[in-house]
Parts: sequence; C-alpha cells; structure tokens
Amino acid sequence: MIYDKRLDQFQVGQTNKYNVFRCLIREGPINRAAIAKRLHLSIPTVMAIVDELYEKKMIRSAGKIEAGVGKQPEILGIEPEHFFYVGVDIGRSTLRIVIHNAIGTEIAVMNEFTGDTFPAKEFISRLQLKVVNFIEVQGIEIAKILGVGFAMPALMEQGTGRVIFAPDFGWTDIPLQDWLQGGLPYPVLVRNSTQAMGVYENFVTALEEKGATLCVNLGYGIGAAIIIGEELLEGTGGISGELGHCVVDRNGPLCKCGNSGCLEAVASGEAIAHQAQTIISHHAQSRIAELCQGNITRIDAKMVFEAAEGGDGMALKILQTAAVNIGIGVSLGVNILDPSRVVLCGGLMRNGPWFLDMIRSSMEEHLVARSSRSLVVAAGASDEYSAAKGAARILMNTLWARRELPI
Amino acid sequence: MIYDKRLDQFQVGQTNKYNVFRCLIREGPINRAAIAKRLHLSIPTVMAIVDELYEKKMIRSAGKIEAGVGKQPEILGIEPEHFFYVGVDIGRSTLRIVIHNAIGTEIAVMNEFTGDTFPAKEFISRLQLKVVNFIEVQGIEIAKILGVGFAMPALMEQGTGRVIFAPDFGWTDIPLQDWLQGGLPYPVLVRNSTQAMGVYENFVTALEEKGATLCVNLGYGIGAAIIIGEELLEGTGGISGELGHCVVDRNGPLCKCGNSGCLEAVASGEAIAHQAQTIISHHAQSRIAELCQGNITRIDAKMVFEAAEGGDGMALKILQTAAVNIGIGVSLGVNILDPSRVVLCGGLMRNGPWFLDMIRSSMEEHLVARSSRSLVVAAGASDEYSAAKGAARILMNTLWARRELPI
Repeated sequence: MIYDKRLDQFQVGQTNKYNVFRCLIREGPINRAAIAKRLHLSIPTVMAIVDELYEKKMIRSAGKIEAGVGKQPEILGIEPEHFFYVGVDIGRSTLRIVIHNAIGTEIAVMNEFTGDTFPAKEFISRLQLKVVNFIEVQGIEIAKILGVGFAMPALMEQGTGRVIFAPDFGWTDIPLQDWLQGGLPYPVLVRNSTQAMGVYENFVTALEEKGATLCVNLGYGIGAAIIIGEELLEGTGGISGELGHCVVDRNGPLCKCGNSGCLEAVASGEAIAHQAQTIISHHAQSRIAELCQGNITRIDAKMVFEAAEGGDGMALKILQTAAVNIGIGVSLGVNILDPSRVVLCGGLMRNGPWFLDMIRSSMEEHLVARSSRSLVVAAGASDEYSAAKGAARILMNTLWARRELPI
Repeated sequence: MIYDKRLDQFQVGQTNKYNVFRCLIREGPINRAAIAKRLHLSIPTVMAIVDELYEKKMIRSAGKIEAGVGKQPEILGIEPEHFFYVGVDIGRSTLRIVIHNAIGTEIAVMNEFTGDTFPAKEFISRLQLKVVNFIEVQGIEIAKILGVGFAMPALMEQGTGRVIFAPDFGWTDIPLQDWLQGGLPYPVLVRNSTQAMGVYENFVTALEEKGATLCVNLGYGIGAAIIIGEELLEGTGGISGELGHCVVDRNGPLCKCGNSGCLEAVASGEAIAHQAQTIISHHAQSRIAELCQGNITRIDAKMVFEAAEGGDGMALKILQTAAVNIGIGVSLGVNILDPSRVVLCGGLMRNGPWFLDMIRSSMEEHLVARSSRSLVVAAGASDEYSAAKGAARILMNTLWARRELPI
C-alpha cells in the first residue's frame, strides 16, 4: 500500500466499538468506567457504545459492584448466546467439530471416524450433513451461526479454499470451499490444517506477545505455520511453511515430492514407521517385533515410541536419528525467520518430554548465533481439537478484520 | 496488539497530511483537484493541507496548466531542498555515502577505501568526520538533514544498532549506533547491510506490489533479507535471513560458525575462491592459474568467473557446484516463506546471466509444489550503492511510520 488507508469518523467509531466489544469478551464482566480506563476512551463514548450493544441484545447486566457508598456501577458481560462460530477438522482418520459461543467457550465438540474420502463430491455432501446435524442437535438457530471454518490437510490455493493436492485423500484440484458453501447456510472458509493449528497454538500461548512463532506440525507428515505478531503468513500462493520438503540430508531417501532427503522423508511419522518396518523385517531383536505381533505392516510411529520408552535400543536409535533431523529442519526455519518461539506439535509430540529434549539438543548444534537468540522451544498444547479450533479462530479473525461481526 | 489502535481526529488529519505529502513526492507536480481525486479526499481538505505545507515552505508552485478556458489550476511540487537524508554503507573494502533530497533524488555520492577498521572507536571517529565533511561540502545546513542511516555488515542487535559480531571488522559487542550518534548532530540509525540492500531492492522493483520478497546477498558472505509487503522482517533478535548458515550439505566443509556444510561454506565468494585456490595448488591446468600469475593467494571469486567466461572447465565446474548449492539454499527460504519474488544480488551476481540460469535450474529441482507457485527469480539492481540507499530508506520509513517528518 503506497498511501495509508484513509480514516474517517465512521472508522473511528467502528474501532472504538470493536475495542469495547473485545474488552467485554476478554476482561468482562466489567463496568463502564473500567472499560473507558482500559481503552483510554471517554465515559460518554463508552456509554453510547454500551447503549447500542444493549439494544442489539449483545450484552447483559451482570449485577452491581457491592462496594462503597452512593450509586453502584453496573457490571456488564457479553451475552454468550448472541452468536456462535464453528470449527471443523477434516482429518484423514478423524473428523472433529467444535462449536464456540460468543465469548469463545467451546460449548460442544464431537469426533468420529472420517471414513471413505473418495469420490470427493460424495464425501463433501456427507460432511455438510454432519455439520448441519451437529449444529441442529445443539438447538442453535441458523441465523446465530457466524460461520464455519474448516481445516484441511492439503496443499491449498490461497484465499479461495481450493484444494490443489491432498495426497492422503486422493484429491487433486477440488474447489472444496465452493462446494462446501454450496450446501451450507452459513459463511464457510477453508484453510490448511497446519496453518489452523498454528493459529490456535499462537492464540493459546501468546495472547499478548509480539514476535514471530514457528509452529511445526510433526505427524504422519511434517508442515509448519508461521505467525508474525498475530497474523498468519500465508505466503503468495498459500503454501508457506513447507518445512517438510526442505532438504536436510541430500543423500537421504527419496521423498513423495520427488526430491531426496526432505525432512518429511527422514523424520515424519510415516518415515519412522517405514524405517522400523525395514529394520524389523531384517532383524527381530527388538521390542517392536513383539508389539506388532509379527505383523510388520502394523508398525506405526506410536509403536516405535512405545518400544523406545520400554528401553528398546533399536527404537531409540530410530527416534534419535529422527530428532536430529527434525532439529536440523527446524533450525533452517529459525535461521531464516528468527522467531521468538518454536512450538512443536502433532502426533510425534504426544510422547515423553525426552523427544523434545533430543530435538532441542540438535537445534543447539545447528542454529547460528545461538547466544544472541531469545528463543523458546516448546511443545504445543497437544489438543486433538487444535486444528478445528484454529480454523474457527481464523474465521473469527477474518470477520473481525473485515468488521463483519453482528455488533 | 490486542486492541486496535485508538483513532482520533488528530490522527485522521495527520494521515491525510502524510498522504498528500506522499502524493506530491510520487505523483507531483500535480494540482489540488488531482490530489483530491487520487486520495479520495474533499477539495477543501486538500486545500487546507496544501496551505499549511506552503506556509512551511515544503511545497512550491510549478506553474499553471495551459488548457481550456477559465481559471487555470496551479500545479504544485515538493520543494526538493526542504530537507535531505543520508545513507552510509560501511563496507569492509569500500565506504560509500549517498545524500538524497526531499523528493528522493540522489544529489551526491562518494566512495573511498574503508581502510583500517581496528580499533573500532578510532574508526568510528574517522567515519563521523567523513560524513560531516561530505555533507558540509555540499553546502547543506545541519538542520536540514533529517538523519543518517548506516548499513553495517554484521550480526546486529535488533533496534539498538549494536554490533554483536562483525567478523570482517574484528569487532565484538560494539555499540555502533550509540557511538556514531555521540559525535553526529543528526539522528542516526544502524542496520544490517543485507537488510538495507533488501529494502532498496524491494523499493526499486516492487513499489506497488504485494507479497513477500526474499532478497539474497551473494557476496564474500551470504545473507538474506525478508520483506513482507513493504516491511522488513527483522526477526526477534534482528537476525532473520541467516540463509548463509542454513546447512545445504551436512557432509560439506566446516563453516566459520562451527557447523558443517552451511551455504556460506560451500557457495560464497570466499568459498569459491578457497575451492579454486585448493584445486590450483594441486592442478595447474586451468586458466585461473594464468590469471593469478602464479600467486595462488590472489585468486578470488571474480577471477574464477573470468576464467569460466573464458571457457575454463575447472572454473565452470566450481561455479556450477556453487550454483546448485545456492539453488538448494534459496529453495529452503522459498519453501518456508512462499514469497512472490526472489531477488539475487551481491558480487557473485555481477557476472553473466548464465550464473542466474544455473541457480534457477537448481531451484526448479529443489522447490516443492513448483507448479502452484507464481515465483519470479531475478537478479537485483546490481547497484554498488544499494546498501547505502537502503539504509537511507529505512531511516525515512522509520520517520514516516513515527510521523516525524517536518511537515
């Protein structure tokens, strides 16, 4: 933008109103004078806004302060059922839905087996029905739903919610957002799962913090989300954060993307399982062989972690190598972005803290200018609903930025 | 920021004034009605601002439009000598100074041999004197200098302009900005050279473009600057863009930073020279041996490029390997950031376009989701003053953002 956005009286008013609303959500119940003080606004300005929100049944009285003499100030709170917003995580194995009320509380969650995802059109029809039914079962009117944010594990086109490629779903070039919108009576938005997860992790752990967060999703695949301040860096084509396809070992195994030695090809859940399968098929001296009860195809990353925790040397070695590679890969991201925080989440992180420690050690070795950094490397919230909640949050952030809340 | 910045009447007025000022710089000479149309402001608003700028001798009349009948509108332009701003590039071999006038034209440039940089305190005293003298020689009053931006090839602490480490200068922990400010009568700001160069490259090539730019400085060392929209991503500690210390070949040679196979250790100007020196010391069948006239220590990257352009196979092979590694390293940055543009600049890029082509080929191989990208990979402006001009621009951007221009 060459010129600063032109400001006018209407925007001044809207900004004040949105700030009062946010203050009521974040700091309420609260009285008018406290809002005015917090936001550096005049009491008459706050009173006028509060009157308007009252009229729209957006806020309610939460009683009076019982203190001192004279007139007692009225405490105000948001009406939690004034509106709702929904997040859906279209996971390859599990489908998850979360409904939030106006103050952000999760009032209902559900998860079920995702089932068959092919053909896409049929899957999407079933998905629409599930979302509509789950909202209906909660007794919420359609008009009160601000929208539904979907998280999809796919390469997405920026802004349009079109799936370019979803390898685990067998989908190529599917206009997912348009198709979903076609059968749903609420606004719909689709974003990449890892980006949604990153937005949620940033929200729960850094509400007031500045700086950038690199959120790395270590699961069956590997991806990352970059959040700068409170904004997701989507990238020009919506495909930022492809940490999984950064080469960490150019002599390493071939990756699905066609390159060799991508982080995903050497350290993802899939890669860990594959390495264990290969080793066990040649070498039975491991607890992994017992855990899979002789059926090598049943070996997954979880089993390798279980064996390692049981003291199995072979499993530990596989995971140690994965952790070193993850440390190299994450260091690439840190060297380039200089974030204030790395949040590691996803399936691989739902094991002992020793795996995080291994990754940290590898990062210590591979970061440049270690001593000048004030970097926190932490495990994520490990909430199985984080992608769904993140998608809901992206939807709300979008409505907020566009000033499209019903206030 | 949790709450949106509170807006008031004063800010509305300031934004309008700054926009009119920018419009006069960018699109002037221009008449009042055209400014109003361009900025969607009312004519009286523009007239009031113009009157104020006139009073401050900020603008001048540039005549009248000779067209039609009736009253002719007056054309307005910025008074170019109303203020000046300066950029200084503290290069290891060459010191460069550029003075800009109010409309951004470079009115004076100079460069000279940097000389001895140790001890830092003495070097800085000499530098201050040079800057003061050069400005004085141009006949510019001190009060008309808005400030001086310095570009320094060092690991810098964010915001403070403190040098953490400048290997080529032998400096560790030098409060460069404070020391410079101590002896100069104008506001001073110090930033990393590569970041300054990136800001300049972004400015000259993408004035109206959105998206992110990854500007890679391929010189004696390797670094990068990330510009998102028009903002430099400085990073939490001011050390973003350390692409030179991303590992591209973990079995590669040891790097100064302590790791092995960093991009800088395999593909920088220094690395290229070192490789050529090693090879020539064992193998005289190369044009490089002739060019250095038997003095192997004289071999530098420039000589290797010269030999390659003369058809020398050995030199070409060294540069081909460097280009492949640069392609891998730049791909890391692109996979993570998904920028709309990569600008490759610095000494290595001041050779034939074939080197850029080699880098592009390597990137084609190492980028994920190539087909979904709308990425431009281009050579930079190749202006030897780009770091100085970029530092001046960062200074101006800072004054602009803080609304500290004398308007």
